[in-house]
Amino acid sequence: MTKKTKNDKILLAHGGGGQLTDDLIRRHILPSFDNEILTEMGDSARLDLTSGSLCLTTDSYVVKPLFFRGGDIGKLAVCGTVNDLAVAGSRPVALTLSLIIEDGFKMELLDRILSSIAKTARQSHVDIVAGDTKTVEAGAADKIFINTAGIGARLPGVDLGFRQIAVGDRIIVNGSIGDHGMTIISQREDIAFQTQLESDCAALAALTCQLLENVDGIRFMRDPTRGGVAATLNEISMSTGLSIKIRENDLPIKPAVQAAADMLGFDVLTIANEGKFIVVVSPESVGECLKICRNDPLGQEVQIIGEVVETRDVPLVEMETRIGGRRIVQMPYGRELPRIC
Amino acid sequence: MTKKTKNDKILLAHGGGGQLTDDLIRRHILPSFDNEILTEMGDSARLDLTSGSLCLTTDSYVVKPLFFRGGDIGKLAVCGTVNDLAVAGSRPVALTLSLIIEDGFKMELLDRILSSIAKTARQSHVDIVAGDTKTVEAGAADKIFINTAGIGARLPGVDLGFRQIAVGDRIIVNGSIGDHGMTIISQREDIAFQTQLESDCAALAALTCQLLENVDGIRFMRDPTRGGVAATLNEISMSTGLSIKIRENDLPIKPAVQAAADMLGFDVLTIANEGKFIVVVSPESVGECLKICRNDPLGQEVQIIGEVVETRDVPLVEMETRIGGRRIVQMPYGRELPRIC
Repeated sequence: MTKKTKNDKILLAHGGGGQLTDDLIRRHILPSFDNEILTEMGDSARLDLTSGSLCLTTDSYVVKPLFFRGGDIGKLAVCGTVNDLAVAGSRPVALTLSLIIEDGFKMELLDRILSSIAKTARQSHVDIVAGDTKTVEAGAADKIFINTAGIGARLPGVDLGFRQIAVGDRIIVNGSIGDHGMTIISQREDIAFQTQLESDCAALAALTCQLLENVDGIRFMRDPTRGGVAATLNEISMSTGLSIKIRENDLPIKPAVQAAADMLGFDVLTIANEGKFIVVVSPESVGECLKICRNDPLGQEVQIIGEVVETRDVPLVEMETRIGGRRIVQMPYGRELPRIC
Repeated sequence: MTKKTKNDKILLAHGGGGQLTDDLIRRHILPSFDNEILTEMGDSARLDLTSGSLCLTTDSYVVKPLFFRGGDIGKLAVCGTVNDLAVAGSRPVALTLSLIIEDGFKMELLDRILSSIAKTARQSHVDIVAGDTKTVEAGAADKIFINTAGIGARLPGVDLGFRQIAVGDRIIVNGSIGDHGMTIISQREDIAFQTQLESDCAALAALTCQLLENVDGIRFMRDPTRGGVAATLNEISMSTGLSIKIRENDLPIKPAVQAAADMLGFDVLTIANEGKFIVVVSPESVGECLKICRNDPLGQEVQIIGEVVETRDVPLVEMETRIGGRRIVQMPYGRELPRIC
């Protein structure tokens, strides 16, 4: 048996902390993420930020399937964590990467995922500075799970939060909604129109930093992932005690996404996005916000979808429907889409 | 059905990002880790360190069984990451916590694990500041996997690294080796003497900080987890190009651990520890090091196990055996013990 055939699959021993772990790290992982801090291979990465004011976040990724139109679990693992740092008002600096791999997982697929992680990290100007690899027996995990944690340097003078939000603030989204979730579910169900769908998976930090550095009236940002726009708007409403009014006509939804959702019985508002942000911005600053978004590839279809309004009885998210009626947009229950990210 | 019986198990929908996720977080997770930063529930935690010089690390934990003598997956997930920050020369500050949970996992067990995480974090003076919860279908993961990432504030003036290591430096370990690994494997195999074994799982940061703040000649620290002392010493030897001589007589090994290892055919040197560090220290400073260790509950059985020596042909780790012979201590291959941490 040649060395190559020997290592075309992940073995339990690749997680044992010995020679094989060292092999995996030196041959497959380090070359993907070439940077001085990682190559030190210390127990922790050492970083020097210009200030001690930072953001820290984490997410695990269990998406199924691993590869989908518009992305894969690796791209998602970088974008998701970069976006969490971005919408918190920071510039992403470094990520950690932790893999849990099932015995027998193809090395070739691992390499594809690693190269996607590396490419996305490079494009997002973040380094992968620390990592971990665990293996489990066949049947003890579904192929591969990825965790990334990230730190970002907080942008000076930026203070986003629910408490900044006021009546009259506008709510904008940087483009079409529901693309990621409907792509995953369509691919999983293998339905006919899946080729027209593509995940919006993208790293938003360049655009969010530009917005925060140039627009004064930004109150709050969040990326509407699991639970979709419905969950994000309900979180805003519950946390501020204010109500939100959106207009169905102003929601940017691609026809293929709407068709898939209708066919499968989903509400697009509850579907996960992976390249979108909701921004709450003062009415004076909304114009500037739109202008900056439209000049960025990730914000060309930016849309004002609604605004923050006074609460009458209880804080509510309400939608003016296309036919002029009113519908309450509820917090989704949670059973919409398992393993979407 | 009452609300209580409804939620005695984790459901897929608990990971959906909707009401049930919110319930899980607000009822089970937030109360366990009460702190202002986490309670903000932003997309990222916001932290202010006094300096931007920091350490960052991550580890996933897949240990089987979840509960073992001396600890559980939760305690391990805190200690392991705290120790990685500690041996890198930093004071651990904050952790993130990410859970991947199998559908049907008992809520009662999750609560036990969360409370163990909270207790260990409190004892280690670190806050859990950000988190994530994912659920997967029954059969897609083995009960629960935990990831923690952590940041630490680097101790001023401390610069540990392979390049500081010189011939003549002493190698010390803060107590008995092999306890964690042999406890796990014995419990898994359900063998008779398992009651005499107990994991050494412990957070070492208080002791490492005391050492680094009081002893000048510390060159390098590492916690010998997967791959055990054998892997750590081989890493030192490979990275420095120097050789290492240890003495079998000086290795602190508990009789029950040695008996279990002999019976099951393991070399204790390759067995994982979770509450031990290897310190490489200059000969002038070793006395001070031992003194500080002996005054700490986690260092009372500290032992000098060997020293760094000149390399003759190739860098080697060599052991003087009890009967006066010599044996090469190899880098373990990796198949020793799957899912040990």
